[in-house]
Amino acid sequence: MGAVKAGLVDPKQDRAPKQDRSRATRKRLLEAAVACLAEHGWAGSTVSAVAERAGVSRGAAQHHFPTREDLFTAAVEYVAEQRSTALRALFPDGPTDRRAVVRALVDLYTGPLFRAALHLWVAASNEDQLRPRVTELEARVGRETHHIAVDLLGADESRPGVRETVQGFLDMGRGLGLANLLTDDGARRERIVAQWAKLLDDVLD
Amino acid sequence: MGAVKAGLVDPKQDRAPKQDRSRATRKRLLEAAVACLAEHGWAGSTVSAVAERAGVSRGAAQHHFPTREDLFTAAVEYVAEQRSTALRALFPDGPTDRRAVVRALVDLYTGPLFRAALHLWVAASNEDQLRPRVTELEARVGRETHHIAVDLLGADESRPGVRETVQGFLDMGRGLGLANLLTDDGARRERIVAQWAKLLDDVLD
Repeated sequence: MGAVKAGLVDPKQDRAPKQDRSRATRKRLLEAAVACLAEHGWAGSTVSAVAERAGVSRGAAQHHFPTREDLFTAAVEYVAEQRSTALRALFPDGPTDRRAVVRALVDLYTGPLFRAALHLWVAASNEDQLRPRVTELEARVGRETHHIAVDLLGADESRPGVRETVQGFLDMGRGLGLANLLTDDGARRERIVAQWAKLLDDVLD
Repeated sequence: MGAVKAGLVDPKQDRAPKQDRSRATRKRLLEAAVACLAEHGWAGSTVSAVAERAGVSRGAAQHHFPTREDLFTAAVEYVAEQRSTALRALFPDGPTDRRAVVRALVDLYTGPLFRAALHLWVAASNEDQLRPRVTELEARVGRETHHIAVDLLGADESRPGVRETVQGFLDMGRGLGLANLLTDDGARRERIVAQWAKLLDDVLD
């Protein structure tokens, strides 16, 4: 700021790096928030704990996210968007290998993002402050995941039953995520994925 | 006891009503524990809260269940057994109306028992004391539900893919339970159940 005041730096040129730093801090906070939620659950996830994890002052964290609810709902949304983008990028040519698509969709529910979202979801069922925000967030993320699934599976939703088949399949993905919470359910899951990829083939083609 | 000491009551005759009372107290505690967990989550579920809800002294509650983990894992197991028995009783003639069976199986995951189990499950992922017990409990309840599903759906698991189809279907039930946690998802669920009952018909027959 001293340099700006002294007229040595053009204020417009100075703004861009500042915005970059602010964006980088925000990103660090969001990623730390998801990791914290996945590891320690809602009870163990405070703005202070996330700020410390991200190496950011508590004041700076609160400047970006005034409340705990702001921080954690923004975090789950941010990481969900990252995952959606990454998932689309995995299949740039659209529906080719359906079993690979089925596996990638199920994988959405077995990582830290799902664990974090699950903690938020379950906490929201008992906390009035959190409930409307998480309800709205889950609806938005759910719609986006459904769109991606329809595209990548090459599902024609104008045909009867196709929409419900895709919905049920994504619900199965969430259930498989739950089954993976306490133990590594990978071997069982892989057999189920193989079978359901075949069943989806029968319905969708 | 005075009457027993005085030889007025046969001790053997006195024992039965006492055991009945003890059993009734235990049952009240278990049912109150599931209701408490479903409504208030793990953080809001203590032995004292459950004792109060059940109208039992804290000492009596601790006589039956020395620790919080004892009480809540026993409660989820007890109610799960009740639900299994009730489910089998719904279809005394075995697999007749498959859509009704599919709906009844999915219903396992939309009531207070699933909410309670979900809270316990998610809490166990962050609490070392709870984790092994809930892991073991979920495996046991999951196996029992699988057996019931196989019987009621009339599924022949010796045929390739049938076991995985039933497993995936039950995971879908858990996912549908999750989707019902914050909002009433009944209308969407009914459409999915109708479609998946058809898919199961194709695979199982």
